[in-house]
Amino acid sequence: MGRLNSKRVKKTLDDINQFGATKSGMFRLAYSAEEKAAQEYIMTVCKKSGFSVRVDQAGNVIIRRSGLDDSLPAVAIGSHLDTVYNGGKYDGVVGVVAGIEVLQQLEERQIETLHPVELIIFACEESARFHVAMIGSRAMIGELDKEYVGLLKDKNNQSIVEVFHERSLNFQEIEQAKRKKSELKVFFELHIEQGCRLIEEDKTIGIVTGIAAPIRLSLTVVGKSSHSGTTTMEHRRDSFLAAAELSLALEEAAKTEKRFDTVATVGVVDVQPGAINVIPGKTNLKVDIRSISRKSRGRVLAMLEEAIKEVEAKRKVEVLLNWKTDEDPIQMDEIIAKNVQSICERRKISSMFMPSGAGHDAMNMAKCWPTALLFVPSVHGLSHHPDEFTKVEDIVQGVAVLKDLVLSHAIARKE
Amino acid sequence: MGRLNSKRVKKTLDDINQFGATKSGMFRLAYSAEEKAAQEYIMTVCKKSGFSVRVDQAGNVIIRRSGLDDSLPAVAIGSHLDTVYNGGKYDGVVGVVAGIEVLQQLEERQIETLHPVELIIFACEESARFHVAMIGSRAMIGELDKEYVGLLKDKNNQSIVEVFHERSLNFQEIEQAKRKKSELKVFFELHIEQGCRLIEEDKTIGIVTGIAAPIRLSLTVVGKSSHSGTTTMEHRRDSFLAAAELSLALEEAAKTEKRFDTVATVGVVDVQPGAINVIPGKTNLKVDIRSISRKSRGRVLAMLEEAIKEVEAKRKVEVLLNWKTDEDPIQMDEIIAKNVQSICERRKISSMFMPSGAGHDAMNMAKCWPTALLFVPSVHGLSHHPDEFTKVEDIVQGVAVLKDLVLSHAIARKE
Repeated sequence: MGRLNSKRVKKTLDDINQFGATKSGMFRLAYSAEEKAAQEYIMTVCKKSGFSVRVDQAGNVIIRRSGLDDSLPAVAIGSHLDTVYNGGKYDGVVGVVAGIEVLQQLEERQIETLHPVELIIFACEESARFHVAMIGSRAMIGELDKEYVGLLKDKNNQSIVEVFHERSLNFQEIEQAKRKKSELKVFFELHIEQGCRLIEEDKTIGIVTGIAAPIRLSLTVVGKSSHSGTTTMEHRRDSFLAAAELSLALEEAAKTEKRFDTVATVGVVDVQPGAINVIPGKTNLKVDIRSISRKSRGRVLAMLEEAIKEVEAKRKVEVLLNWKTDEDPIQMDEIIAKNVQSICERRKISSMFMPSGAGHDAMNMAKCWPTALLFVPSVHGLSHHPDEFTKVEDIVQGVAVLKDLVLSHAIARKE
Repeated sequence: MGRLNSKRVKKTLDDINQFGATKSGMFRLAYSAEEKAAQEYIMTVCKKSGFSVRVDQAGNVIIRRSGLDDSLPAVAIGSHLDTVYNGGKYDGVVGVVAGIEVLQQLEERQIETLHPVELIIFACEESARFHVAMIGSRAMIGELDKEYVGLLKDKNNQSIVEVFHERSLNFQEIEQAKRKKSELKVFFELHIEQGCRLIEEDKTIGIVTGIAAPIRLSLTVVGKSSHSGTTTMEHRRDSFLAAAELSLALEEAAKTEKRFDTVATVGVVDVQPGAINVIPGKTNLKVDIRSISRKSRGRVLAMLEEAIKEVEAKRKVEVLLNWKTDEDPIQMDEIIAKNVQSICERRKISSMFMPSGAGHDAMNMAKCWPTALLFVPSVHGLSHHPDEFTKVEDIVQGVAVLKDLVLSHAIARKE
């Protein structure tokens, strides 16, 4: 049976990845024709298997296998099909493929469950197209800022409202995608790790304990522009060197919080005026600090603020904090996580508990329903990249764990 | 007489600065209509005073007051009228105003000189328009790379060849602007300091000992892009943090060479891919190292190379040196510099010897003729900026020193 499953998983994955494939990676952007084609392919396959299929007002696809009592809340599996620009073939897709496979295995084996089982294919999980992530799951939990999202445009200046129209969706109805708490019992997501801890620890399943959320800062260092030839080293108020010191101080601060897996990154640097013979007068840094521990994240921020004071005094610069976003880290359900651990032990599949540094739809779903997020290994930790890769055998192991998890919550009546 | 001179200096300065004045600074770009109008204004004034006037094949304006023996090499004063974008009212212009004033004082006082005296208004001293500086003086000494310069375009995509045509010049003849060594005896330039050493030391005249020339490097640090949330601090190969360390090491290196007034600057920083949630995979730095001592500059470069090796090993990045330009620092004539010092002492004008961190036409002229470069104070050290300012009294003092210097080399027959 294992080899057959493995073949089918591989085929489903390849079939879906026909949509949006290019020489420079996957281009299956949120709400694109390619994404729609992939969804339609899946809906056709699932209808043939006898599952009901619908698209909600946010563009989420909901595939449902009836339970013995359809009035009971559904056990839901979910993931996404959209990719970043030049994306890979596994991020998101793996979870969808796993969901299809679980539903199909239940159907083939004529396993009846008390609760219905759903596969949710979320719309717009990636922020690549509209700079806002997880639009589908935000809408589903009723936390979408419709006014703000309604103004979004993609880089071709096409508005999200137009894009919805092209997809035969009405953006004005997006809030109707909200589901009642009573509609779902639990939510499970299988995703590639996007890091290299599973590979390094030689484990197959990562059981996510919590999803780190970022504090994001925009820091502007204001020094003084002057001529690179005529200003002595002592007279400089070089904003870039101040920014360099702050960036290195931030790295040190994050390293001291290693036990919480806290990370900090300066990803965007803008140096003005940016001429080879002018000392930089103004430098902007965009900073991202993540942890599953709010306290640890706060300590890193405090260390950065301390460094800012020192650098301001030492280099006669001023550091302005232009904006700050601060999302809450989200904890996964502890009981379900232990449940996953037991399943792995029973199946003799190696597993480990770990945090997720990246955001996922599970983050939103966890606000309403007990949620589990499972990782399978990413080779070289690569993600959002054409070379992103996860072995089919690992996906099949993930499917097996996911299936057991679904069965234990949907309550199987026969196998 | 001092007050009269002061009034006229102020008037000439103001008259010239009508051309190209805007609310956001001076726009009197090289070979522009504004620069041409300013030149024509000056040529009209000078013709009225009885001086001969011509424009050479590079667009340099040459104003000449005859000597008793016109076959003798001329004593030349020179500076430029072109500005950068959003430029100031003093850079370049002060030297032209001083030259006009010296010629006019000689004429008024009917001072005959053995040698003819010239004022050269150089074309295209600033690199702002065509990214190549000192085109006029390069052509005059026969060191212009005609093939290279002939391909230059400005930011509106207008070629230098077309621009020459608009100015009634023929770019193909530019090499004919070269002058024989026997045509000039000495060259003197008066310029604003563009730094704040004179103000700080409370001196009026800076006597330049040498003009620093830059080594310029483009360094590309290659690390690895990865997800800011899923990559632990230990697994990062952050190109920007490596670049930050190199920039700080460069600063330290330059500081150790303080006694040579050596300076080093990172003015351009490009961080790729430049997303808040991606660790920078590639960072490019443009580096400028200047000194009047080749050896000191070389030591700074060696210290940077040492730092590169350390950072490469420590951070598992690769640093590529994409290009390197290396100009020779130029020494000013020592005897003339001492001559200037004596003049200042006699006139009780405070002076100091100092290097020039910025390039000037004097750099080119010094390759052919004994050359002096004098500075007057820049308030706040500002330069290439609308707020650039030098007091008229200081310019008048500079004129007085320049006049004495001209008379001692042109050999006055009567005062």
